[in-house]
Order: sequence, then structure tokens, then C-alpha cells
Amino acid sequence: MKGNISVQFSRSVVSNSLQPHEPQHARPPHPSPTPGILSNTWFDCVLPGDTGPQEMVPSRKNVVLVDGVILNGPTTDAKAGERFVEDACRLIMEEVILKATDIREKVCEWRPPEELKRLLDLELRDAGEPHHRLLERCQDIIRYSVKTNHPRFFNQLYAGLDYYSLVARFMTEALNPSVYTYEVSPVFLLVEEAVLKKMIEFIGWKEGDGIFNPGGSVSNMYAMNLARYKYCPDIKEKGLSGLPRLILFTSAECHYSMKKSASFLGIGTENVCFDPEARPGRSPFLVCATSGTTVLGAFDPLDEIADICERHGLWLHVDASWGGSALMSRKHCRLLQGIHRADSVAWNPHKMLMAGIQCCAFLVKDKSDLLKRCYSANASYLFQQDKFYDVSYDTGDKSIQCSRRPDAFKFWMAWKALGTLGLEERVNRALALSRYLVEEIKKREGFKLLMEPEYANICFWYIPPSLRQMEEGPEFWAKLHLVAPAIKERMMKKGSLMLGYQPHRGKVNFFRQVVISPQVSREDMDFLLDEIDLLGRDM
Amino acid sequence: MKGNISVQFSRSVVSNSLQPHEPQHARPPHPSPTPGILSNTWFDCVLPGDTGPQEMVPSRKNVVLVDGVILNGPTTDAKAGERFVEDACRLIMEEVILKATDIREKVCEWRPPEELKRLLDLELRDAGEPHHRLLERCQDIIRYSVKTNHPRFFNQLYAGLDYYSLVARFMTEALNPSVYTYEVSPVFLLVEEAVLKKMIEFIGWKEGDGIFNPGGSVSNMYAMNLARYKYCPDIKEKGLSGLPRLILFTSAECHYSMKKSASFLGIGTENVCFDPEARPGRSPFLVCATSGTTVLGAFDPLDEIADICERHGLWLHVDASWGGSALMSRKHCRLLQGIHRADSVAWNPHKMLMAGIQCCAFLVKDKSDLLKRCYSANASYLFQQDKFYDVSYDTGDKSIQCSRRPDAFKFWMAWKALGTLGLEERVNRALALSRYLVEEIKKREGFKLLMEPEYANICFWYIPPSLRQMEEGPEFWAKLHLVAPAIKERMMKKGSLMLGYQPHRGKVNFFRQVVISPQVSREDMDFLLDEIDLLGRDM
Repeated sequence: MKGNISVQFSRSVVSNSLQPHEPQHARPPHPSPTPGILSNTWFDCVLPGDTGPQEMVPSRKNVVLVDGVILNGPTTDAKAGERFVEDACRLIMEEVILKATDIREKVCEWRPPEELKRLLDLELRDAGEPHHRLLERCQDIIRYSVKTNHPRFFNQLYAGLDYYSLVARFMTEALNPSVYTYEVSPVFLLVEEAVLKKMIEFIGWKEGDGIFNPGGSVSNMYAMNLARYKYCPDIKEKGLSGLPRLILFTSAECHYSMKKSASFLGIGTENVCFDPEARPGRSPFLVCATSGTTVLGAFDPLDEIADICERHGLWLHVDASWGGSALMSRKHCRLLQGIHRADSVAWNPHKMLMAGIQCCAFLVKDKSDLLKRCYSANASYLFQQDKFYDVSYDTGDKSIQCSRRPDAFKFWMAWKALGTLGLEERVNRALALSRYLVEEIKKREGFKLLMEPEYANICFWYIPPSLRQMEEGPEFWAKLHLVAPAIKERMMKKGSLMLGYQPHRGKVNFFRQVVISPQVSREDMDFLLDEIDLLGRDM
Repeated sequence: MKGNISVQFSRSVVSNSLQPHEPQHARPPHPSPTPGILSNTWFDCVLPGDTGPQEMVPSRKNVVLVDGVILNGPTTDAKAGERFVEDACRLIMEEVILKATDIREKVCEWRPPEELKRLLDLELRDAGEPHHRLLERCQDIIRYSVKTNHPRFFNQLYAGLDYYSLVARFMTEALNPSVYTYEVSPVFLLVEEAVLKKMIEFIGWKEGDGIFNPGGSVSNMYAMNLARYKYCPDIKEKGLSGLPRLILFTSAECHYSMKKSASFLGIGTENVCFDPEARPGRSPFLVCATSGTTVLGAFDPLDEIADICERHGLWLHVDASWGGSALMSRKHCRLLQGIHRADSVAWNPHKMLMAGIQCCAFLVKDKSDLLKRCYSANASYLFQQDKFYDVSYDTGDKSIQCSRRPDAFKFWMAWKALGTLGLEERVNRALALSRYLVEEIKKREGFKLLMEPEYANICFWYIPPSLRQMEEGPEFWAKLHLVAPAIKERMMKKGSLMLGYQPHRGKVNFFRQVVISPQVSREDMDFLLDEIDLLGRDM
């Protein structure tokens, strides 16, 4: 880079990091490190006094050049950067936020992978690009991204736009904190404490502990490892080798992260048992119940399961990643009847409560610092014990992560804004809309409900006219299996709505409709059924 | 909630989710689920035709009430929400972004935990709060948060403000994607592919694979599990029980996540070995080298280690979470000489390259789908094989997570904006500034360098006047040990700068200064030393 920066003071010359620049000289491609292209000196220091036309800008101190780099003053052009952020914010406001409630917009503008690659020019090059070009790129990226905020996006267990959590998320990005020590994240650690406390109250525990982490799957891993640590604390140091096989019980409807967790934690997927038979020579240590299964939205009977766990001294973990939000509703919290008897709970406010991806709490009933004992590694550069404040607030050592995002904050902001009552109302309305859809499905020709839903997952088949008279035998099901994927393709290419489909436990492909957002209304439910019929009636 | 929403059409009445509301009737506290307070009916459906003064708003369809909830139209007041977002964005712009380069601002406004709790009123209540109150809260939260963007925040391995990655992060939050399938995240999956490809090129591999994930610690877990899977694929199903003890080798300077990982994965912290002795009856499967250690910024000799790994058929993982960014610099990439011989690499662009927390790649040399075979769980509701597009783009099953953030995107945006040359310049400048600081430390009375740095970590003691004449015996070190914490306390309370201290391997507490951001200049380096001297000269 020598010779690339001249010894001048003007900000515009020094600050090429905010301007597109071309290589000033033929340069070798950026390769893997090989000695040939490297300079042999570590640093060539040219220290104050021997360079720099100080007279040009008398207010500056001496120019300092080290290794050909001018070290005086910042090299970013803050004004240009701020303008860029402002322009981009305007674009985001117009193209994402204002359109988030507009049903006339497309949910997605489908392009196949190869075509989209051509359209977006994703390649990274030596030279940078000017702001106007970057803003065009931002526009393209928004254009071809799926609008998960759209009132007709029903594809996943999250949807819609919550203005409050969005503001919290913007703040988080601007402040760029990492939540491990009080000295670096005082506000966000206290916010996390306050949110966990409240969630613990809703679970019905008198006290507890917890940590926000990147996903329900990770929460389930936390639970599995914590239960194992409780069962045999030596495993932390000694590992599983030489021990009898650990097994855990869950239902076949559990989330796939149970198997991922068992594999990752060295327990092995074979030791995730779906039937409660005793297995001689194996050591059960954990039962995982699910409150709100991913596909069907089903709830395990927690009280019954808790009875069994108590009888056998087993840790009860409840994966309420999806269903936990029903706890906010006095009407629907009985779906989780008995959850206060769990030892740990996973609950993701980024789903039904719209806190933004990701916002996932792992909660523990234990208050004897089990979580910390299990996870701590006591890094001396972060968790110094001779700090001048109460280091019990340095909670980062409870985490499997080092850097950690302040995910509790976005939920806190929405809760502050809406109050418990506002959150409750959201849950009640989503479930009322679900019920409305169910009744419509029952009434409409060509729609067939898979089962009565317990929650906001409505699973149904669309039976096109050509199959309506057919007997429900193997041929019927084989043909029906092809219908949902074909309609989904048309739906994506049209961009009019998005909902998921899947086969499940011997049932052929069916649609799964998920209702979450208060931007959604019964008109969207009607539209959904009309549109599926429109897309599929010639099949 | 029945009776809380009246049957009217006006948006302002229906949309109480955007307005502060008080309970309309005495309500029991939100408790754990008990049957007593629950209604006995699941849903009370009042379907079209039997309610609603349609004549009041002729353009609307029939009012639909389910379970006391009006289902017509969205219940959010989008206009008010948008205004709130706009107001908050203005606040963020003024209070965070514009001040990010202003050295006259404080780095932090210290408050002890109990006082800060009182100041912030973090409690969550039944009733929500109006927008003006929420904006005041936003202001307070910004005020008491540490300004990690500040030019004098040197406390961690991240710092500064990159305007481009910030814009990408705002876009991410507004679009709220989850990166697992092409149908839901077409753009962000392709962006991730492009970024991984380029990072693989910089490592020096001809091809490879990888995944962005929430942290260098998690990357190290990925590596440990993948190496184990390669060593014995059966472990995925069968687990570790009954197998000989697996051991791995690393250096004592490795990140603490090595031990966390070994514990989490069921390997056990005892099986993380710091000396390369053979251990009869134990099975070595992995060597972890570090490129850029956390405290000292030291680099392991990768070529030597790779030789050993080749000789013994061991997986070589390089934790380059911190040091990987030196690969962007033709001058400094030789610090990682030999990295192309690694089997896997952890590299966090959120540190030196300022992509925003978190942006962490786990990269693998293997191109035989090892990552996917190791991690996949084939969830039928996400990774359907009968989709209409090329499902090899549905890369989410390579992850331990289900929902996953598009972290590659923020790095992509900065790279597009600055080009490889701009990123290289940042690295070069940060290391030139580090070198300048080192030379200043050597010149100044009362400062003592711990060691010559290899990278951007400058470790040094400040020796206050009262200790300068003392012999460097036990008493000297005991007294010196107390100096850094005492200065840190004064520094935090004054808010003038932040840098870390720690003891390390028999060395008493010393400061660790980390230089990253292009907002920083030699004037800040001078200030740092002046300020430490000012804060400590009476000690």
C-alpha cells in the first residue's frame, strides 16, 4: 500500500476508506499467504519531526507516518457516512416499513437462484463502490427479499412487524453492544434480568434463572446439557466416555433440534427415545415435553409428564419455543397447564410475540447457580474478580457464547409499549383468527382440515376439483400429495401469499397456515382460501 | 378480555395495541396457569350475519367477532407506528451515530447497578406506555449504554462504527429474515455463499464450505464436533458412551471456548490437553491452533502445527476469530502463514473488520458435504425435497440452529463499499497505530511494555510514581497488581476512555489496549497514555 496515500492533510485525500478506489498500481491478486509477496519488514517507523508539511495545517500536530500510513486524525469521512445512513434509512422506511401493511404489494418476487445471482452481482472485488451504487443495491436486496412483514406471509412461525421491537433492534445495531459484563453492557444486562424475571413469573416459578440465546434449538441444547450436569456434574470435566449410556425421553412430535442436540452433545441420536419403555443398562436423565409443536401446534400434557418425572427423579424440560407465548393470555395459558413444574423452559418471544429474530429465552427453575456452575469458564480477561462493582452482574459466563447480542431488549421494548394486556390481546386475536379460519375451512368445498387445532397452526388439504369425487384410497392420496407443492410453486411465482406445506407422519403434503400478526385480519383469511382455490382449481 | 373491545369500526377504537391502555376491569394478576381464572370454552364463535351494525361503515364487510375479538381489518395503527419509528430513528441518528466520532462525548456514563435500575424503571406492567414516554426511555437507554462506537472505546476486540455494515444491519432488522431455505431467504443465502467463497479464497483453499453462526465460541464447537464426526461418524447416532476417551490438543493461550466446547460436547475439559505428550489409551482427534490470541494477540506457528497434524492424521482447526482479518492485508497475512493447511477455520469479521456483533464464519476445507452430513436432521417441514427449485440452496440444515440471522450480509455490504483494498487499508492502519503506541510506551516514563506485540493487542503496565524507584520484587508486583483496577475504576467513573486489564500467566494486572477503528488516530493513542498517567500519577 505504500505510495497509495500521500502525505497531505486534506480529509478527502486521507479518507479514501469512504470512497470508491481503484488500485493505484498493478497488484497481485489477494492470495493465500505466501512469503514472496510480503514485505520483509514488520513496520517501518517514521516518527514525528522528519516528515510532513506542518505549515500547511498549522493547527494539526506533526504528521505521523508509520509504515506508509498517516496516523493523524480519523480516516473515515463521517459526514459522508452519516448521509449514507440517512439515505438508507429513508429507503428502508419507504420500501420495507411503509409497505409492510400494504396487501397490494407482493409477498415475494421470485427468481430462481442462478437468475438472482446475475441480477444482484454479489461478487466482492478489490475496489469499493460509491454510495449511489450501494443504495441501488440496497433497493435490489429489498426487492428480491421475501417480505416476512407482509400481512400475507404465513410461511413460518414468525411474521409481521412490531414497531417497538424494531426500534429496539435499530438501537441495538447502532450501539453494537455485547452482553457479558456489566462494565460493557450495563443497561442491557439489567434489561435481560428484568425480562427473565417477568417470564419466570408467567411460567409460575417463584424464582429462577435464565439466559437469552440464539434460538430455540440452542435453548434445547442448554437444557440437555444442564440436565446432564445436574445428573452427573463430573461430565463437565471428564466427559461421557466410559459412562453408561444416557438416554432422554421425548415425543415423536418434538422439534428436530432434540436430535441435533443429542448428536452435538455427544449423547447420540439413538438415545433420544420416543417411547417410555425402560431400557436396561441405560441411564435416563431427561424428559423433554413440547408446548406447541412445530407442524401441528400440539401441546403435551405437562401435568401428566411432570408426575412421571417426579416419580423417577428426571429433569423436565419444556420446549415452549412456539407455544410459550400462550402464557401471556389468561384465556389460553391453560394449554401449558403444569408448566410451573418444569425444571427448564425454552420460550421464543420472536415467534408469536413478534420480538424479531432472534429472541429466545432459556429459563431454569434452579436458583442455586446451577446454570453458572455448569457453563462457567472464568475467563480472567472478562470476568475479573477485582472489579470495583458487584461482579454478580457479569452474567456472561452462564453462556456458551462469548459475544452475545442483547436479545431481551427488543422484547422488553414491545412489552413496555403494549403492556401485558396488549401482548395478551395479540395472542387472543391470533387464536381467534385461527378459529375463524378453521370454521371457514369446514364450510368450504375442496378444503379439508387435518385436525382440530389447539393453537395457531391450521393444517389442511386443498382438494382440487378433479379429486373431489375420487375415493380416498392410495391413488387419491398419491395425487393429493402433489397438489400442495404445485400450488406453492404457483403462489411463489405470483407472489400473492406464502404459506408452508409438508408431509407429516403418514399424512401426505398438506398446508400449514400460521396466524400471528395483528396486521392480519379475517379478510386475509378469506383471501388465503380464495387464492388457494384460484391457484389450484384447474388441477 | 371480553367486553374490552367494543363492536365499532373506527380504527382508533379497534387498534388499542398501539395506545396505552389500562385494564377496563379489575383483573387478577397474570399468574401461572390455574383453571380457576380460565374461561371454560375454547372459542365462542359469532360468525357473520348475526352481529355488527354494518350500516355504520357500508364499505366494510360484515363484522366478524370470534371470542369477543373483532377480526375485521388489521388492529395495528400503522401510521402511528411508522411515526414512532421515524422519531426513534432521528434520535438514534443524533444520539448514537453523529456522536460516534465525537471525542468530546463520554465513552460511558457510569452508574452502579442498583442506581441504574432506579433510573431506568425497567419493570414490565399490565399497561403499555405512550410514544413520548417510550422515546424518553430510548434516550435514557442510549445515555447509560457504553458507546462502543466511541473513538476511545478500546475495551474489547470490537470497536468503532462502520456505516455500511450498520445499514445492512438496519435492513436486516426491517426485513426480519431467517436464513434456512431459499424460498424464505433467497437473497441472504446467496450473499452468504458469495462471502464464504471469498473468505475461503483468502484462506487459500481451492474450495470449501462454511456457515455463519453466533460467535467464535460456537465456531469452535462446530469444529470440534465436525472433527469428531470425521474421526468417528457413528458418534452422531451412538454418542460417546463406551468409546475410548477422545482428546484434543491446543495451547494454553487458546480461547476459553475450547474448554466450554469440550464440556458442552461431552468430551470433558480434562481432555483438552495443553502439552503434546502421547496419552496411552486415549484417542487424539483434533488440534486447535490460535491465530490471534485474546489477551496477547499471539499467533501459533501454523506450518509447524500442520506438519504434526499431517504426520498423525489429525484434524487441524485454526481459531482465527480475532486474527483472521490479517488475511485481508498483504503486509500482515504472513502472521497466518500455513492457514491453508487447516481443515477448518473460525474467523469473525465483527472484530477487526467491524461488521457488527455478531458476524462469525466457520469455514471448512472439505467439499464432500461433510458439514451437512454431520449436522443435518432433515426436518420435513423445512427441507422438503419436492420443492420446485434446486434445494441444494436450502443450506439451513448445515446449522445447529433452526432460525438463523443473515450475518454474512453486513460483512458483504462493508466489503462491497470499501473493496478488498479498503478493508486491507483498515487492517494496515490499525496495526500501524498499534506500532505507534508501542513506540510511545517505550519512550514514556512510567509505562512498561509486557512484550512486543504481533498484532493489535498492546499489553502494558502503568507504573505510578510511588513504585518507580522500587525494586521489581514480590512487593513491587503485588502493589502493581492493584494499579490497573484502580485506574480502571477512575476511568469508568470519569467516562473518558475504556480499555481492559487482566492478570495473565503469572503476570500481574496489566492493561490491554486494542486498536481497530479508522475513527481512531494517533491523537487518541497520545490521549490514552496521557489520561492513564493523569488518573494514576497520585498512586
